[in-house]
Amino acid sequence: MQPETSEQLVRRLSASFNKQTAMSLIKATMPLIGRGCTEIHLPRWEGIQQQHGFIHGGVVGMIADSAGGYAAMTMTPENASVLTVEYKLNMLAPADGDTLIARGSVIKSGRTLIITKAEVFSVRGEKRTLCALMQQTIMVMHDRGEKSN
Amino acid sequence: MQPETSEQLVRRLSASFNKQTAMSLIKATMPLIGRGCTEIHLPRWEGIQQQHGFIHGGVVGMIADSAGGYAAMTMTPENASVLTVEYKLNMLAPADGDTLIARGSVIKSGRTLIITKAEVFSVRGEKRTLCALMQQTIMVMHDRGEKSN
Amino acid sequence: MQPETSEQLVRRLSASFNKQTAMSLIKATMPLIGRGCTEIHLPRWEGIQQQHGFIHGGVVGMIADSAGGYAAMTMTPENASVLTVEYKLNMLAPADGDTLIARGSVIKSGRTLIITKAEVFSVRGEKRTLCALMQQTIMVMHDRGEKSN
Amino acid sequence: MQPETSEQLVRRLSASFNKQTAMSLIKATMPLIGRGCTEIHLPRWEGIQQQHGFIHGGVVGMIADSAGGYAAMTMTPENASVLTVEYKLNMLAPADGDTLIARGSVIKSGRTLIITKAEVFSVRGEKRTLCALMQQTIMVMHDRGEKSN
Repeated sequence: MQPETSEQLVRRLSASFNKQTAMSLIKATMPLIGRGCTEIHLPRWEGIQQQHGFIHGGVVGMIADSAGGYAAMTMTPENASVLTVEYKLNMLAPADGDTLIARGSVIKSGRTLIITKAEVFSVRGEKRTLCALMQQTIMVMHDRGEKSN
Repeated sequence: MQPETSEQLVRRLSASFNKQTAMSLIKATMPLIGRGCTEIHLPRWEGIQQQHGFIHGGVVGMIADSAGGYAAMTMTPENASVLTVEYKLNMLAPADGDTLIARGSVIKSGRTLIITKAEVFSVRGEKRTLCALMQQTIMVMHDRGEKSN
Repeated sequence: MQPETSEQLVRRLSASFNKQTAMSLIKATMPLIGRGCTEIHLPRWEGIQQQHGFIHGGVVGMIADSAGGYAAMTMTPENASVLTVEYKLNMLAPADGDTLIARGSVIKSGRTLIITKAEVFSVRGEKRTLCALMQQTIMVMHDRGEKSN
Repeated sequence: MQPETSEQLVRRLSASFNKQTAMSLIKATMPLIGRGCTEIHLPRWEGIQQQHGFIHGGVVGMIADSAGGYAAMTMTPENASVLTVEYKLNMLAPADGDTLIARGSVIKSGRTLIITKAEVFSVRGEKRTLCALMQQTIMVMHDRGEKSN
């Protein structure tokens, strides 16, 4: 069997991401996909705020969870899918930038479980602040690939 | 000083919740507010799905985090506000019900830190399934109440 | 195949526990084993203290982790073993009692993963204080039972 | 006020560590103390094993928790002490080396809360394997320094 090319990897993950209506609802995109890592970007806009006008912590968690999950998915066979078993997220600073970048990366990749982390940066101009840090456990479901429509 | 009445408590928390545009974006409501506990309800609808058509895990995390945070806020003085320090969420079953109910409750309430949990139930007809469980640390910011607009 | 009796369950778990030299080092015992739950007891003694004279937080974590892991093991077939994938522990109060009791219980039992919690109580006379709360993910290794010596 | 010298820092932390009888019970030492990081070393020996003969996961957690806590303590004033609020630990590989090294480091240091991580390496000869990863929240208790005996 041919190993998956980078182009095929990007196509496989993007197809999955694009089916997540929750990601388009909050206006998140996934512009970076590499073996073992992903980035999800999110502009600050009025629909995703908490009571102080910053980006809602739950939304920060949403993109962290997804960035970690997709980083795990870069390690699995094409006919597998992934499930979040659990994650733990520390909020380090208010998400008050113009953009958030959640960078997911794989820490350890096993056949059944994949351990990942995600760092979420709040970006304003040249300045990047680490605003959240997540540690996550992902389960691989073999032979249960995501169906194309 | 008069202790806060139940009605004042509901008014204080609802005012905060209603300023969270992220909660109205996903169509979440907070119909239950009591001393030490809250419930956030969320109907299943097409805008908050993941790639398999279930409610997105990140959205489950969002309402769990908020239910725990507001449960903590029921314990604080009126002129204080709360911040999520961290939370840990286990996903136990797919969120495939017609409604999700996130029930937040206070485990231990200190002056500076409040420890909470949230249980998220997936509800379909008569059937309720525990689909996520969260343990959370909240920090109290004294003398920094949420301003009314 | 005959289902395992309560007596066989107790014998299987006790045999495993007794092989853990780390548990006897700290003087922990496991006097309660039932389907889905266990208790590990620990007397306060001078060898397991931290710098303030209370029981060391790491020792609290040790018995919480073990109580959860053995609660999971009550749900598995006899020819399986269990591994801690991860746990998250909140310390709620100093462990200043005369005895600690870590009560592990199963929250959700799947074929591959078992989710548990543990509550650790600090006991002094009649008084019990919840001093730690843990949420844990356990992996079942099928057909890899623990060998008897 | 004079800033604390490296020598004073080492003396302050070592004095605290040496009062933890639980650390000497398991034969752990803290040979490395720097501003923002520490290392706790632990030889493998028969008294700290689990049922398969590896170092007990609870003992791994113990040194991870302590390494993170002492890393936090390097950032606090001399008249302050630290408390573990919570930690989350993923076990990545069996602790089957001849020595374990838990390296604690500070991720974010605030006045009241300090967020740390710890990596635990299993060392055998030249080979180092990351066997556990922890994310932790520490609380600073100001004006409550540890008393000397």
